[in-house]
Amino acid sequence: MRVLGVDPGLTRCGVGVVDGAPGKPLRLVSVGVIRTSPDDDIGTRLVELERGIEELIEQTRPDAVAVERVFSQHNVSTVMGTAQAGAIAIACGARRGLPVALHTPSEAKAAVTGSGRADKLQVTTMVTRLLRLDAPPKPADAADALALAICHVWRGGAQARLQAARTRATGPAHDMRQGRTR
Amino acid sequence: MRVLGVDPGLTRCGVGVVDGAPGKPLRLVSVGVIRTSPDDDIGTRLVELERGIEELIEQTRPDAVAVERVFSQHNVSTVMGTAQAGAIAIACGARRGLPVALHTPSEAKAAVTGSGRADKLQVTTMVTRLLRLDAPPKPADAADALALAICHVWRGGAQARLQAARTRATGPAHDMRQGRTR
Repeated sequence: MRVLGVDPGLTRCGVGVVDGAPGKPLRLVSVGVIRTSPDDDIGTRLVELERGIEELIEQTRPDAVAVERVFSQHNVSTVMGTAQAGAIAIACGARRGLPVALHTPSEAKAAVTGSGRADKLQVTTMVTRLLRLDAPPKPADAADALALAICHVWRGGAQARLQAARTRATGPAHDMRQGRTR
Repeated sequence: MRVLGVDPGLTRCGVGVVDGAPGKPLRLVSVGVIRTSPDDDIGTRLVELERGIEELIEQTRPDAVAVERVFSQHNVSTVMGTAQAGAIAIACGARRGLPVALHTPSEAKAAVTGSGRADKLQVTTMVTRLLRLDAPPKPADAADALALAICHVWRGGAQARLQAARTRATGPAHDMRQGRTR
């Protein structure tokens, strides 16, 4: 399973693509940051961001997209930009028929460190370890996007294992009637 | 000048297209609401909204898009949906190279009623009057989208008049050097 993780933002949007499957080692496919200039108008920025995400999807062909779920933050103008950038990422995936999942920052942190309140260094350390990288991913901001992608691989993995167990218990016909296979 | 006004929302997105020019009567081209179901996932909703706006742009070919500028509101989950829907509308316009402007609710209200604190009935009454409609626009929510479009026509008009005055004063060559013509 190949997952594109997106840590949405207008000025810096973290993107990371990871290959993984239940019980198998994870593999880094791509990591980076899509930047747009605060000097440009919002339309230009959103379209540039869209182009960057589209290109990455074309190049890496993920099976799913995981976007950070935006919550209210202290700074309202930041929330707006994050929500707008997130909407573009979600639409890029959904337009191609890719499953799009939203995970909270806590879920992503908990997935890679075991704690939903882990700090940035801890997340970067674990992402580096889990992907067996020689050095922390650069730019540092993109570690969050990789954590999201890993979070999704493992959640998908857990769901796939449950699914497999159900299929073994009841037979595939029953499973298909439920329309739960993918 | 033909303007598409968008009052962004996920469940109900008001859209209104108006023809107008400085000192000329306004004309209603199209008005409506694009709805998406709260039961659907966010990806499906954003892509449906995008499709609705794309179709309207195809049908009516506006010269510009005016989107309501989202501010912090009481209900955070509403703000998120509004920001996400607004991002889709902005991207739809910008992707086609259309100028996209953001106007605040107060600016739109002030444009059609003279007061930035006018209530919904006042806005609907004035939109109905200014567009010389036999009855208030339906659905009522779309009146805000029409007010935004009218606001933009008139602001554009004022800018165009200033521009024309500048051109008369300094000659078109100067104007073109400034790259201000459109």
